[in-house]
Amino acid sequence: MLTRSFAFQILLFLYKIEIMISGRVSLFVYLEKRRALVEKSLASCIPSAATRPETLHQAMRYSLLGGGKRLRPILVLCAAEALGDDSEYVISNALPAACAVELLHICSLIHDDLPSMDDDDFRHRKPAAHRVFGEAVALLAGDALLSRAFGLLAEIDCPKRYPLSVMLNEMTLSVGSRRLIGGQVADLEAIAKNASLDQVRFIHERKTAEMVRLALRLGAMTANATPVQLDKLTDFGTALGLAYQVIDDILDVTERSERLGKTAGKDVKAGKATYPAVIGIDASKREAARLTRKALKSLDSLGEGTYRLRQIAERLLIRHC
Amino acid sequence: MLTRSFAFQILLFLYKIEIMISGRVSLFVYLEKRRALVEKSLASCIPSAATRPETLHQAMRYSLLGGGKRLRPILVLCAAEALGDDSEYVISNALPAACAVELLHICSLIHDDLPSMDDDDFRHRKPAAHRVFGEAVALLAGDALLSRAFGLLAEIDCPKRYPLSVMLNEMTLSVGSRRLIGGQVADLEAIAKNASLDQVRFIHERKTAEMVRLALRLGAMTANATPVQLDKLTDFGTALGLAYQVIDDILDVTERSERLGKTAGKDVKAGKATYPAVIGIDASKREAARLTRKALKSLDSLGEGTYRLRQIAERLLIRHC
Repeated sequence: MLTRSFAFQILLFLYKIEIMISGRVSLFVYLEKRRALVEKSLASCIPSAATRPETLHQAMRYSLLGGGKRLRPILVLCAAEALGDDSEYVISNALPAACAVELLHICSLIHDDLPSMDDDDFRHRKPAAHRVFGEAVALLAGDALLSRAFGLLAEIDCPKRYPLSVMLNEMTLSVGSRRLIGGQVADLEAIAKNASLDQVRFIHERKTAEMVRLALRLGAMTANATPVQLDKLTDFGTALGLAYQVIDDILDVTERSERLGKTAGKDVKAGKATYPAVIGIDASKREAARLTRKALKSLDSLGEGTYRLRQIAERLLIRHC
Repeated sequence: MLTRSFAFQILLFLYKIEIMISGRVSLFVYLEKRRALVEKSLASCIPSAATRPETLHQAMRYSLLGGGKRLRPILVLCAAEALGDDSEYVISNALPAACAVELLHICSLIHDDLPSMDDDDFRHRKPAAHRVFGEAVALLAGDALLSRAFGLLAEIDCPKRYPLSVMLNEMTLSVGSRRLIGGQVADLEAIAKNASLDQVRFIHERKTAEMVRLALRLGAMTANATPVQLDKLTDFGTALGLAYQVIDDILDVTERSERLGKTAGKDVKAGKATYPAVIGIDASKREAARLTRKALKSLDSLGEGTYRLRQIAERLLIRHC
């Protein structure tokens, strides 16, 4: 009996390993496939580099097509997929929203990196846009990406439950002065001021979680989510977005620049309000795990379609391990 | 006979003077009334200065509610009025579009005034936003106004002929990298380079005429313009916008800062591409008059409703006299 039980345990263990490995490989393949789709769509949603004024379009393409994980647009697609029936239609209808969210994100990176803001010279393993094209053109490239993001919403075949006016309001509020942009101001104002945990949360909810939340919501809306599904995916997005930023704060302390693709240790040096600075590395790791569990729990009632979202949340958490 | 004819001539002259004076007074009253309506609407379309983060909202309100002629939003209302039947409904439905155009304009002013751009310390007779709130907050206030502008479109009760997607596309294209923002880049690139007349036109068509054109088009769309009416008002807007910029270029040379409310002689000093720099003051004045005539001619077939647009075009032309 003991031997049989032992053999069973070994088989079970191997089976789990197999699921884990095949799951990871298939997540990797899935993410690459989605990333390629997003890249192609991004490349075609802004004018070519030969369009006058050339410098501006070169700067826009340099920043937009310059790499990155494309986490936010992939989350838009994942949210739509998690709810949709007709996969091909659902994905193609969510693509403009996916690109819009990425354009907003890249605009915020270009503007954040400017000398008058975070003054960062390095982004996605390359010199920041303002180092290549100058401050003025970089700033205007950001403005142009921001404007184009809104225009992309007009390309969605909006379900009756979520007409274009609803999606437009959603995006305006998310980007606006009380959320994303407000978060950036609060971030700048908190520098070197021994921020409290409340302040750090205020900033992270706006600077990072808001765009992840928007990604989930827009994706869900394009796939005609029920109000309950939309609420659950919103909760998932908020918790995942916060977890993501806590992990990013941890990596800023523990990783080297080459691996991060941007200047490491910058937050500490700049006296930024971060989780490790307020509660320490170990508590930050526990907080990231707690937030990830919270995110996963939000998906409990949504069924099997959400397994990619689960995989992504789990994958993000182990980045700092 | 001679005496009677002379008396008649005098009477006719006095009558013309009377029409001219009463016309002007009534235009002045009309513009003030519209300006007050726009100011009130602008004040309520962005968060209060007490909203967190306060500095950002103070900066947005400082720039947005800091004076100015409100020409663009008034043109939105005028275009709608020129075509509409039910005046009160037409005006209230055009108001969000009017505010949106003004928000875009103010964003472009804040960003243009930044040290890395035109580096201007003075706007609407007050220190520029970046002088009061710092570069970072000014830049982000511009971003927030730009985002809010798009959101305002969702408040329009769009006619079937011009659904929200059409208005959103219209605004995205107008602001985007090929038009307004492209014009600003071309403007910066032309500095101190002895620009040709073609280059000056390329810049002016984008930097100024585009927003005036957008004002006319959005106003006309909210009032359900026929395609022919929309075309005529577009032509009016383009010609008026160009005339306006030529006149602005002339005033930069001939006026003092106090009267302009911004730094005079700045264009010349900065080696900017302007009409007076390329064709001289007198030819510029003739060009402004030609463009104004062209604008007025576009209105010929549109009937009596366009008389405010005519008055505004005529009033703008005599600014430099």
